[in-house]
Amino acid sequence: MRFGLFGGPYRAGSGPSGYRKGYSQFIDMVTEAESLGFSSVFVVEHHFTGLGQVSASLNLLTSLAARTSTMRLGTAVAVLPWHNPVLLAEQTATVDVLSGGRLDLGIGRGYRPVEFHGFGIDPAEAQERYEECLEVLIKSWTSSERFSHQGTYWNFRDVVVEPQPIQEPHPCIWTGAGSERSIRGAARSGFRLLLDQYGSAEQVRQRIEWYRSEVTTMGRTFDAADVALARPLLLVEPKDLDTLDAEYDRRVAAIRRLREASRIPGDDTPLTAEDHDFFNDARVATVDAAIAGTPDDCIQRLLELKNAGVETVLFNDPSGSIERLRYFSKEVMPALA
Amino acid sequence: MRFGLFGGPYRAGSGPSGYRKGYSQFIDMVTEAESLGFSSVFVVEHHFTGLGQVSASLNLLTSLAARTSTMRLGTAVAVLPWHNPVLLAEQTATVDVLSGGRLDLGIGRGYRPVEFHGFGIDPAEAQERYEECLEVLIKSWTSSERFSHQGTYWNFRDVVVEPQPIQEPHPCIWTGAGSERSIRGAARSGFRLLLDQYGSAEQVRQRIEWYRSEVTTMGRTFDAADVALARPLLLVEPKDLDTLDAEYDRRVAAIRRLREASRIPGDDTPLTAEDHDFFNDARVATVDAAIAGTPDDCIQRLLELKNAGVETVLFNDPSGSIERLRYFSKEVMPALA
Repeated sequence: MRFGLFGGPYRAGSGPSGYRKGYSQFIDMVTEAESLGFSSVFVVEHHFTGLGQVSASLNLLTSLAARTSTMRLGTAVAVLPWHNPVLLAEQTATVDVLSGGRLDLGIGRGYRPVEFHGFGIDPAEAQERYEECLEVLIKSWTSSERFSHQGTYWNFRDVVVEPQPIQEPHPCIWTGAGSERSIRGAARSGFRLLLDQYGSAEQVRQRIEWYRSEVTTMGRTFDAADVALARPLLLVEPKDLDTLDAEYDRRVAAIRRLREASRIPGDDTPLTAEDHDFFNDARVATVDAAIAGTPDDCIQRLLELKNAGVETVLFNDPSGSIERLRYFSKEVMPALA
Repeated sequence: MRFGLFGGPYRAGSGPSGYRKGYSQFIDMVTEAESLGFSSVFVVEHHFTGLGQVSASLNLLTSLAARTSTMRLGTAVAVLPWHNPVLLAEQTATVDVLSGGRLDLGIGRGYRPVEFHGFGIDPAEAQERYEECLEVLIKSWTSSERFSHQGTYWNFRDVVVEPQPIQEPHPCIWTGAGSERSIRGAARSGFRLLLDQYGSAEQVRQRIEWYRSEVTTMGRTFDAADVALARPLLLVEPKDLDTLDAEYDRRVAAIRRLREASRIPGDDTPLTAEDHDFFNDARVATVDAAIAGTPDDCIQRLLELKNAGVETVLFNDPSGSIERLRYFSKEVMPALA
C-alpha cells in the first residue's frame, strides 16, 4: 500500500504572521512526510470561509514542488467554475514543469453555497461551466497549434498556451465520486478516482468494482493506483487509547465548523434536525472508517481496505501531527509496504 | 547602488523538456544571483507568443521564494485585465506569505495586441478593467471584514479574502511609466516606479525628478529605493570588446521577434518604415543606454546613473548569462556598493 496526505494549512494564530506560521508548518510537515515514505499530498482549494483555509492551491503546490523531489502533488480539488481555463492551464502546466511532472489535478464543480455566492456564480451553471473549463483546459495543455474557443462562458482566439505540461498527454485528472453513476462517469472520462473518508470497507470494495468494470468496458486496463481513498488517521500509542473519543468529537466539531462556514454569510437559520443527523452520522461514520487506535488496530483496518482493493490511502487533515506521521511510518507502514 | 534581474525563463530546446530545462536554468541562475549580491528579480507575464515566455509568473515567483531567502520577488508586470481580482489577491497574498513578505507587485494594463485578441478583451476596456481590478485587489488584501463589489466587469458578494498578505498594509505596487503625466500619476497613486531600458542618464534624471516632486507634493517622503531602472547588461572582458557589436544586433533581433510575436496571429502585413525606424532607434538607444563594455566602462555608466539619482538597476533578459553575473559581482559591484 501507499500513503499520502490530504488537506492544507490553516492559520496558526491571528493576523498575517499566523498564516506564515501555518503555511510553514504545513510545508515542513509535508517535506518530512516525503522522507518518512509518504508518496503524495493533495491540497484543498476553498474561498471566503474566514477560517484561513488555503485558497491559492497551485501556489502552495509550487512551493511544495521546490521542497520535495518524489511526492505526487495534487489538488483535491481545483474548482473549475471559479477559474479562467486558459490561466488555469498555464498555472497547472507551470506547476507540472516546475515539479518535473508531478502534478495530479483533482477537479470539481464546487458545492459550497458561500463560494457560489461570493463569486457571483449561479450554482445552476456549475455543471456547464465545469464542462466548458475542462474542455478548454485539455485543449490548452495538448494543442501545440493555435486554437480558438467560442463558448457560453469563455472566448479565446488564436491562442497557444505555454508552457506545455511535462506529463504526456497531460497531467492526470482526478475526481471525487461516490455513487455508481458518478464513479462510472469518472471512469468513462478517463479520470482517476478519489473516494471519501466515510465508506465502509464493503462500500469501498463496491465502488472500486464499479470503477474497475467501467474502465474494463472502455477497453482500458484497470490500475489500482488510479484510486485513492481518504481516511482520518487517529493512530495513538496503546497508553493513549482513552483519548480517541475526544479526537472523534474534535473531528465532528471541525466538520460542523466547515459546514457552517460553507453557508452564505448572514444565513443564520438554526441547524435543522437533518443537520444534526448529519453530524451524528458523521461521528458514527468516522468511528467506523477512521484508521484509528494502536498500531495493531490501524494495521488491521488497513488490511481490510487492502483486501477491498485499496492501494492508496490519503490521510485527511493531518495538520500539526508530524509526530503521528513519524509514529505511523515506524510502526504501521512497514507492515503494509 | 543595488542590482536586480528583470525577465524570465525561455524554453531551452523543443518539447516539454525544453520548458523544464529553461525554467531550471533560470531558477538556478536567480538562486546563485542572490548569493552574488543581487537583491531582486522581476519576472514578466506574457501569453500566446509561441516563444515559450513565462505565463504563470506568480507560480514561478513561488518557486523562487522557496529557493531564495532575501531577494525581493517582483512581477513586471502582472497584467490586471487578464485576472479575476479576487483570485489574483489570493495568489499574490499566498506568494507574500510563502516568501515571508518579499512580493513586489508590478502591475499594468496590457499592450500586446495578441493578448487582447487571445483573451477576447477589447483594448478600449483596458483602463477601466485595470482600475476595477486594482480596486478589488486592494480591498481584498486589506479588508479583514467581508465586503461586496458590484462593478462593470466583476461582482463579488460578502467575500473575505485569505490569506492576508504579510506586508502591511499590502505588498508594494510598482508600475512602469515614462512620460511626465504617467510618472506623476504613479506617484499620486502611491506606486513605485519602474523605468525603461532606453532613456539616457539625463532623461532618467528628469523622470526621477518628476516622481520626486509629485511624491513631495503629496506630502510623502521621497525614497530613491522606490525607483528601479531597467538596463541591458553587456559586460565583457577587455579581450572580448569586439563581440559587443554582435550582442547589440542580437538584442535588436530579440526586440524585433517580440514585437512580431505581439501581433495578432495572421496579421502578416509587412513591417512598416515606422517599424524599421523603431528597430533602428532601439539599436541606437540600446547602444546609448546599455551597461556595456569592460568593467571600467560599466562602472562609468553606472556612476552616471547614480549621479542621476538611480539607486536600483535591474538587468533585463539576463537568461543564461550566469557567468556574466559572476563577473559583474566580482569586478563591478564592489565599486558601487
